[in-house]
Amino acid sequence: MRQAQIAFAIETPGQGLLEITDTVAGWLRDTGIETGLLTLFCRHTSAGLLINENAAPAVQRDLVRWLEKVAPERAGYEHDDEGPDDMPAHIKALLTGVSLTIPVAGGRPLLGTWQGVFLAEHRARPHTRKIVGHVIGE
Amino acid sequence: MRQAQIAFAIETPGQGLLEITDTVAGWLRDTGIETGLLTLFCRHTSAGLLINENAAPAVQRDLVRWLEKVAPERAGYEHDDEGPDDMPAHIKALLTGVSLTIPVAGGRPLLGTWQGVFLAEHRARPHTRKIVGHVIGE
Amino acid sequence: MRQAQIAFAIETPGQGLLEITDTVAGWLRDTGIETGLLTLFCRHTSAGLLINENAAPAVQRDLVRWLEKVAPERAGYEHDDEGPDDMPAHIKALLTGVSLTIPVAGGRPLLGTWQGVFLAEHRARPHTRKIVGHVIGE
Repeated sequence: MRQAQIAFAIETPGQGLLEITDTVAGWLRDTGIETGLLTLFCRHTSAGLLINENAAPAVQRDLVRWLEKVAPERAGYEHDDEGPDDMPAHIKALLTGVSLTIPVAGGRPLLGTWQGVFLAEHRARPHTRKIVGHVIGE
Repeated sequence: MRQAQIAFAIETPGQGLLEITDTVAGWLRDTGIETGLLTLFCRHTSAGLLINENAAPAVQRDLVRWLEKVAPERAGYEHDDEGPDDMPAHIKALLTGVSLTIPVAGGRPLLGTWQGVFLAEHRARPHTRKIVGHVIGE
Repeated sequence: MRQAQIAFAIETPGQGLLEITDTVAGWLRDTGIETGLLTLFCRHTSAGLLINENAAPAVQRDLVRWLEKVAPERAGYEHDDEGPDDMPAHIKALLTGVSLTIPVAGGRPLLGTWQGVFLAEHRARPHTRKIVGHVIGE
């Protein structure tokens, strides 16, 4: 058993879901670990990570719209230091979470046919987001 | 330290929570790993995994009703390729998540007294769902 | 590679977010593991764990208020054995989740600058909550 760790910096174009499956799978392949456990961790409180359908872009747009509806701007929040998209982004980070754990087999994340890994940018403007990858296995 | 991995196929009866605690605990016991970390992963985008109360079935029904209320059908989604329960199921999968990590001690998942592991079927009709179990420990 | 496990009992003052970052980081340091994967697990169905901003207390209050709004008391739940805050607490536990996985480097959890680890007490009254810490690494 051994482990590997990496830090990714990913530029987001602003609010929305950005697929990072290939980036993650490429790094995992480079580690040479065939079977194990992959963890991804987002080091932010206004962005998150999620797994959802990657075939139909409309699903991603509907997820973003639903998050906007359930955590709207200007809903009387006490915290608004960084503008109207600030507190909604923290709520969305609670909903999406900031980490993912995925079993690895054959040197690949064991994702289902329609599953993609997404970095969810919850702030309106572009950001550089730090993601940590960790894999343990053999 | 060593690891073990398994693929489960679980038949769901349609929308609702299906407890899989015993299935998971049985497989874990078979691996012989006494102390470690158990990960469960659902390879789908319209079903998920969650831990919640397993004593009172009314809790499970209330959770399903709450998910229906917060992610209703026919709410003006752009994506409806597979019918009215399609996009709500993707939203519910975001909410429940698709993986769980549980410490293991004494050869058992370290669940609390009232905790059960549930496969959450978010589609209306029955489906066969692929779950991966991974454990690392000794 | 080796692992360590610990059980924490944490007293909560009732509904709200209680930061446990230092408690967790202190235990992790004591294990002597420098690089690895940290998992935290809450053994309850009416409390959870989350990572969010720890600099501005207003964020924490807004998160709690948002959870109250999305999972209100007395919303016609079937389950109310333990009072009006019972079923909302189970819903909030679904939303926050009960486990966290965080990569470890330099003997510390690889949290971002603004990230704190919080125990989310979803019941109105104070409770003693059992948290399990597990770390695997070297």
